[in-house]
Amino acid sequence: MSFRPTLDFLLYDWLDAESLNGRERFADHSRETFDAVLDTCERIAREKYAPANRIVDTQEPRFDGERVILPQATHDAHAAFAASGMLSAAQDYEIGGMQLPYTVQAAANSFFAMASVSIGSNLLTSGNANLLLVHGTPMQQEVFAKNEFSGRWAGTMCLSEPQAGSSLSDVVTRAVPDGDGFEADPLGPRYRLTGNKMWISSGDHELTENIVHIVLAKIPDAQGKLVPGTRGISLFIVPKRMVDTAGALTGERNDVALAGLNHKLGWRGTTNTLLNFGEGRFPVGGQAGAVGYLVGQPGKGLHCMFHMMNEARIGIGMAASMLGMAGYEASLAYARQRPQGRPVGPAGKDAAKPQVRIIEHADVRRMLLAQKSYCEGALALQLYCARLVDEQKTGAAGPGGVADDARLLLEVLTPIAKSWPSEWCLEANSLAIQVLGGYGYTRDFPVEQYWRDNRLNMIHEGTHGIQAADLLGRKVLMEEGRGLSLLADRIADTARRASAVPALADDARALTDALAQVQSATRAAWSTGEPRDALANAVPYMQAFGHTVLAWIWLDLAHRSLHGGNAAVTDPATVGRLGAASYFFRYELPKIGAWLRVVETRDPTCAELPEEAF
Amino acid sequence: MSFRPTLDFLLYDWLDAESLNGRERFADHSRETFDAVLDTCERIAREKYAPANRIVDTQEPRFDGERVILPQATHDAHAAFAASGMLSAAQDYEIGGMQLPYTVQAAANSFFAMASVSIGSNLLTSGNANLLLVHGTPMQQEVFAKNEFSGRWAGTMCLSEPQAGSSLSDVVTRAVPDGDGFEADPLGPRYRLTGNKMWISSGDHELTENIVHIVLAKIPDAQGKLVPGTRGISLFIVPKRMVDTAGALTGERNDVALAGLNHKLGWRGTTNTLLNFGEGRFPVGGQAGAVGYLVGQPGKGLHCMFHMMNEARIGIGMAASMLGMAGYEASLAYARQRPQGRPVGPAGKDAAKPQVRIIEHADVRRMLLAQKSYCEGALALQLYCARLVDEQKTGAAGPGGVADDARLLLEVLTPIAKSWPSEWCLEANSLAIQVLGGYGYTRDFPVEQYWRDNRLNMIHEGTHGIQAADLLGRKVLMEEGRGLSLLADRIADTARRASAVPALADDARALTDALAQVQSATRAAWSTGEPRDALANAVPYMQAFGHTVLAWIWLDLAHRSLHGGNAAVTDPATVGRLGAASYFFRYELPKIGAWLRVVETRDPTCAELPEEAF
Repeated sequence: MSFRPTLDFLLYDWLDAESLNGRERFADHSRETFDAVLDTCERIAREKYAPANRIVDTQEPRFDGERVILPQATHDAHAAFAASGMLSAAQDYEIGGMQLPYTVQAAANSFFAMASVSIGSNLLTSGNANLLLVHGTPMQQEVFAKNEFSGRWAGTMCLSEPQAGSSLSDVVTRAVPDGDGFEADPLGPRYRLTGNKMWISSGDHELTENIVHIVLAKIPDAQGKLVPGTRGISLFIVPKRMVDTAGALTGERNDVALAGLNHKLGWRGTTNTLLNFGEGRFPVGGQAGAVGYLVGQPGKGLHCMFHMMNEARIGIGMAASMLGMAGYEASLAYARQRPQGRPVGPAGKDAAKPQVRIIEHADVRRMLLAQKSYCEGALALQLYCARLVDEQKTGAAGPGGVADDARLLLEVLTPIAKSWPSEWCLEANSLAIQVLGGYGYTRDFPVEQYWRDNRLNMIHEGTHGIQAADLLGRKVLMEEGRGLSLLADRIADTARRASAVPALADDARALTDALAQVQSATRAAWSTGEPRDALANAVPYMQAFGHTVLAWIWLDLAHRSLHGGNAAVTDPATVGRLGAASYFFRYELPKIGAWLRVVETRDPTCAELPEEAF
Repeated sequence: MSFRPTLDFLLYDWLDAESLNGRERFADHSRETFDAVLDTCERIAREKYAPANRIVDTQEPRFDGERVILPQATHDAHAAFAASGMLSAAQDYEIGGMQLPYTVQAAANSFFAMASVSIGSNLLTSGNANLLLVHGTPMQQEVFAKNEFSGRWAGTMCLSEPQAGSSLSDVVTRAVPDGDGFEADPLGPRYRLTGNKMWISSGDHELTENIVHIVLAKIPDAQGKLVPGTRGISLFIVPKRMVDTAGALTGERNDVALAGLNHKLGWRGTTNTLLNFGEGRFPVGGQAGAVGYLVGQPGKGLHCMFHMMNEARIGIGMAASMLGMAGYEASLAYARQRPQGRPVGPAGKDAAKPQVRIIEHADVRRMLLAQKSYCEGALALQLYCARLVDEQKTGAAGPGGVADDARLLLEVLTPIAKSWPSEWCLEANSLAIQVLGGYGYTRDFPVEQYWRDNRLNMIHEGTHGIQAADLLGRKVLMEEGRGLSLLADRIADTARRASAVPALADDARALTDALAQVQSATRAAWSTGEPRDALANAVPYMQAFGHTVLAWIWLDLAHRSLHGGNAAVTDPATVGRLGAASYFFRYELPKIGAWLRVVETRDPTCAELPEEAF
């Protein structure tokens, strides 16, 4: 894959991943161990994932009444992935991990996202196990988390319900204590759950011996009523098959039944399910109700869940970025070999001359360079955020320390890391189709599938609208705007360094100006203090914010590419990076004006149109 | 369908379609006859097309080695459409037509595009027959065109070849005279064709007794060589089954063989084929070579073909617009009934209150209003162009007359009518998916199919890049820029009238300013006189041009809605139209600045990046 040098540049030259080895946690690592991980993942992705990507699209998961059937290729890819140890790569040595920096783990996972996003790299399983490492009891960690990290069991996250998608406060799955002594179960306080969970990815399959569901549910009060809102939500481990304290299957099914498979536009390698909890189909001990073990404190479920949200959202951003990258590579390869048409102007008038390859046409180059700027920029942002995760976990502690700054920066950047690639790397996939023309519209080429797969990313893990409300309604305000200030400082720092390089000085000024516009729009949006006014145009705000962040990333990449100097550049990779940065500043950043206009004026056109007028 | 009142407003209030009845050709018509046609088409679309739309997506065309199998629903829809007489609605009475204005025909066809675009309204059949009415001999018209208009036979357009898609000058299908006396065949000079044609829609099926292919091919010179470029292209009628001069099938197959069906991302109700001409599988009279009858003069094939290009491109624009409209209606209906979440701010904090319907959320309204402004605006533009077709055909003749102005305006507007809805009504379909969230990503709802179907429209009938080169490289220059001047006059006229209405005065100024920007960018793009410089950013130019045209359409619609006055408006449809116009001016038109920037500076970033740097 020609994308490996790009990854190496980002990881080593730009983010200086090797410097992480100076920290105690990563002291055993070196560029060699990082490269070995990357090589392994690149190989598995090439050998087991890429060849299966179309297979998993055409052989959708199906239910034979007993079992969910997936293609053999999915089983093979999953087994190879689990065997690689990547599920627990970032974990402590003592639980079988490699203590790999998250930055390197994220980079390694990019290969799988690019080769077959919907077979995937088991983000939910590792996210689920990670959550238990923080909030679970030692026994829950031993029994559930460890078996997930080893790949023996898989994990899910059961949040949504048919009537509660974006609005989790409306969850109505009930959890009641499971008889006398329920508190004393060694696996955790034992409850019986009843309810329906919708959109559960990997909710049922035979890839692993067991599936560990983490389920949001409400414990009724003394009157049997559910507490409204998110306050009432608790978290439970609900295994598909019952297990004992040694992690052995007891042979009994838990009362969790597959109620249906969702048939999707794309991302078909992963089952997506409606699960019924406690309908009585698989009574445990003769009694209906899915057995669940409480994790953490009652009523703190959503708080526990949020713990893993940032990493999950970076995971989605990475998926979107790499789908974009896959389309870029496919369309670039096509454009390099497909002859069609002749140059514009007098040179092209001679029809007796052979056709030129389409990469010689300006508009095809525009579509390729747009893709490059979207996808490489997005990948850089994901890795930057991953680096912040490492800073947060291993940087100097205390208020104003590296770790705390990283935490807060992550809060602000995560909605962008998730939403921006979902929108723009989807656009990249559309451009990839366009480069291939009619061929791109057929299923004989992979680009149409990338586009379908990528369309999910603006929806799951919090829709675009949810991300935008989170950004403008919460993240830029929190801790008195300190997160936004931190980001502004970093942007200003890049602009200052770049302004010293003549080739980048104009772009540095444009970035400084864009930042000022975003800050001014933020103030204007909130100038009435009314959330209704401020948030009326939260998505255009997020689009402008995102383009500004990406311009910053590109300027920083350009600056690093020039090594802070201004020497003539001839290396094609560097010329390409500078070209993509130029493209972003000339074609993309100027778009923010139109988006911010409606934010600044708190434009009420959409919010105030009477319903009957639509 | 709630869209009918919109159509009526556009047709009768805005375009004053009834006034066409003042012309001799349409003198027998009235609002009643127009409405009867619309009612019939609306009913057929509702009864035969809409219920089949998912069926034709899931039951793709397949070839059993003998025949192409389509679902029964397609046969039923096709039969009902043919029986309606719509195939020849715009034709003269003497050949069985209704002498319906094209404006009304286009409006009527919108129902089919909305209900099931890929079953379609046989655009190719009527386009093919129309071409023969202009360029064919009386016998060709009698035998081929009439049987197409009646629905007994279907038609295709065989332009592309595997190596010649956008670049038609590279066609290599050969046509050689078919023996002695070839000129004297009553059906037209008889040739034998050999070659492969790619992307042929409806290239094979059993919906009709016969298929009339219109084929681009080259007649070799005395040395057996093909003339390079488009000059060498001639046009031939190649029936799938041989016919006699009475239009009866002779019982003999012509030498046209289905080489393969293309498997597409969407638009699956229409077969798309690779056809082999003259491979010898079906020898006629014992001899290989597909029999074709020359249409028009040798070497003038592409010229003849261009005759039908404008209408075909308006047809694509209409398809894109109505797919957008279908998504708008589906997502609006969903947003009106789906409860999820609560209002922002203090009012929404009480989780014990029931959820609100999502149409109450500002961001959902933004997504709905964007769709409305894209799709209703696009439909208005298509109908405006259709009205120009009527002006061109029946308006006052002579230089500077209504007809000639209409012709030239159509030349300039057609690339926009084709490209703008392909891009923005596709975006509308993406927003429709987004409104439905996870449900929109499943195949249980229609919106994902609209999105897939619509993705074709930026590709067929000339890609986005081809349209942009046509606009900036040819249309705005032709006849010394008179087309652009004509358009500018109409835009200025609308702005002048709107500026007298206080509620529209700001928008009138914005439109005037946008037009000036487009004109200035046009000059700047061509200021070096080098096509390579001018066309380096032809697509961003077309995007800005398109947004300016749509802003003009919306201002004109708003002005008409207010009847040129400024009285308080309470009618919901009018309030909605004014809201959509407002949306377009506030959220969309300001985007042109970013697009025009690179045009004005003839930005070479994309064109000049070395190939190895991608």
